[in-house]
Amino acid sequence: MQQGHQSWRFDNKPVIVASAAVGGPFEAQGPLSKDFDLLHGDLWLGQASFEKAERKLLEEACEVAIRKAGLQKKDIEFFLCGDLMNQITASSFAARTMAVPYLGLFGACSTSMEGLALASLLVNSRAGRYVLCGTSSHNATAEKQFRYPTEYGGQKPPTAQWTVTGSGVAVVAPEGEGPRVTGATIGRIVDMGITDPFNMGAAMAPAAVDTITAHFRDFGIFHEEYDLIATGDLGKVGHHIAKDLFAKHGMALPEEKFVDCGLLIYGPDQQEEVIAGGSGCGCSATVTYGHILNRMKQGELRKILIVATGALLSPITYQQNDSIPCIAHAVAIERG
Amino acid sequence: MQQGHQSWRFDNKPVIVASAAVGGPFEAQGPLSKDFDLLHGDLWLGQASFEKAERKLLEEACEVAIRKAGLQKKDIEFFLCGDLMNQITASSFAARTMAVPYLGLFGACSTSMEGLALASLLVNSRAGRYVLCGTSSHNATAEKQFRYPTEYGGQKPPTAQWTVTGSGVAVVAPEGEGPRVTGATIGRIVDMGITDPFNMGAAMAPAAVDTITAHFRDFGIFHEEYDLIATGDLGKVGHHIAKDLFAKHGMALPEEKFVDCGLLIYGPDQQEEVIAGGSGCGCSATVTYGHILNRMKQGELRKILIVATGALLSPITYQQNDSIPCIAHAVAIERG
Repeated sequence: MQQGHQSWRFDNKPVIVASAAVGGPFEAQGPLSKDFDLLHGDLWLGQASFEKAERKLLEEACEVAIRKAGLQKKDIEFFLCGDLMNQITASSFAARTMAVPYLGLFGACSTSMEGLALASLLVNSRAGRYVLCGTSSHNATAEKQFRYPTEYGGQKPPTAQWTVTGSGVAVVAPEGEGPRVTGATIGRIVDMGITDPFNMGAAMAPAAVDTITAHFRDFGIFHEEYDLIATGDLGKVGHHIAKDLFAKHGMALPEEKFVDCGLLIYGPDQQEEVIAGGSGCGCSATVTYGHILNRMKQGELRKILIVATGALLSPITYQQNDSIPCIAHAVAIERG
Repeated sequence: MQQGHQSWRFDNKPVIVASAAVGGPFEAQGPLSKDFDLLHGDLWLGQASFEKAERKLLEEACEVAIRKAGLQKKDIEFFLCGDLMNQITASSFAARTMAVPYLGLFGACSTSMEGLALASLLVNSRAGRYVLCGTSSHNATAEKQFRYPTEYGGQKPPTAQWTVTGSGVAVVAPEGEGPRVTGATIGRIVDMGITDPFNMGAAMAPAAVDTITAHFRDFGIFHEEYDLIATGDLGKVGHHIAKDLFAKHGMALPEEKFVDCGLLIYGPDQQEEVIAGGSGCGCSATVTYGHILNRMKQGELRKILIVATGALLSPITYQQNDSIPCIAHAVAIERG
């Protein structure tokens, strides 16, 4: 199964038998609104706190995906999940509701593909038949935990990104109808010394480039293999840096093929809030499990590489003057 | 590879080719001090913060284990790690130092066996040859993050436990000398409605019982299979509850065979600080990768089951009146 230095080749090609994307009110105004299975009119989802609302987003995404797969909760054998909350409580509380064996993950915004890579590994090696993987983020819980109280109305620099309120999950199985996972590349930490938590796109871009390059090397392929290479949430700043780095290494990726989930999810009229682009665990998760897999089902895409990027800092490491360690995990998916 | 509902059988029996345990000053005073590879005289480890000290503990444990395995950092193909810090920063920063492909995990104090189960899965399914897994905790970082500033001198109830300052890691490989991992059982969340963060042993005990029972069921075995069944960190209160639950279910475990890492690591003269027992990710990790594997090497133990228990709460969920979701993951190890 191991392929090259840091990749896995899934010979049994695990199938994404169903996926689901649930979003909030701001995502409902974006250009991908039709790709969500469920959209909420307010950030609270009828819950007593934003944290409980995030948990609810994730639980709903799980329910929808399981229903779309024609399954019931009890059919799920393993649940792999993580999020941005301290001690990934959105995931653990959703796992309590799911009541199935649970493996908690943390890769910040790279968690979506860390989960899909591991879920595919389980299915490919016959360690599980129905494996659920997913992640969530919530704009208000992330602002509260990582930045300033929103009530301060603090100004943000032009490199800041907007945390997606949303959850994306997938059900992976050995057989069935749906896109197939053919391989994965697990990222190394890349840290270029950036310390500004309002410029995570720039911090994460070299990690994305490192993982994509490793993926090409391990599988002996180049971008021609894919119709689409989508990074997680580099935003405007990080996307440009990534493009420049590829060009500098003589590996320029075609403009139309290299996209970023953080640039797809919101429209030009949302620019004032979004600033440099979308971010958060829910960004690559909802865009991939909603929009991109829908495009694949519609026959627009044959083979894709999703490269979820994560900035592994915490408020404590920032306060202690540490730079931002970043990572990216890539998963290759082809039409079923 | 899947065995029953929630377990994995590792037919290739991955080998723990080396393991390491690093501890702090209080662990150095305990009865297992000789089982640590490295012990520190002060909690700071010469670092500018306790968080950086915890990172250092983990980095040292990795270095020692890799050296004991006769390897170099670059030989490690995947690093699976997690800890209790918000956004598991001890692990991610250690992964930066390791500079190898990294998968971040979170299972609170169950992380040690979540990591060993997944590392063994990777090796067993030929997704990696040398896989490093581990975890850490630090008394001062945990007190600061989860409880009150130590300077307050707050009184603790008799059910409170003492977070271990330590790190335990293991190098898992397809062949070599050492104990072999034969199976794992992945836990479900069990939440009996306990809300007191100073009584985590009681909260976690039912999860340990649930996982051990599932392990016996999935493999069609009973306690006779093992010379030792060691839970992670139930402490006095949780250990008694677990014993009672087994007895109530007509499955009483022999007294001498059923132990708890949180009761092994400190001595009677440390009672005043320790109260109900040791806890923290480093508890089951250092006791297993140091003391218990040493006993196995010395021929005292033939086959063991390590059941790491985790309380998946956060200060936010506690403040919002949520109860404590708990989990336990079990890994079976036999003499090589």
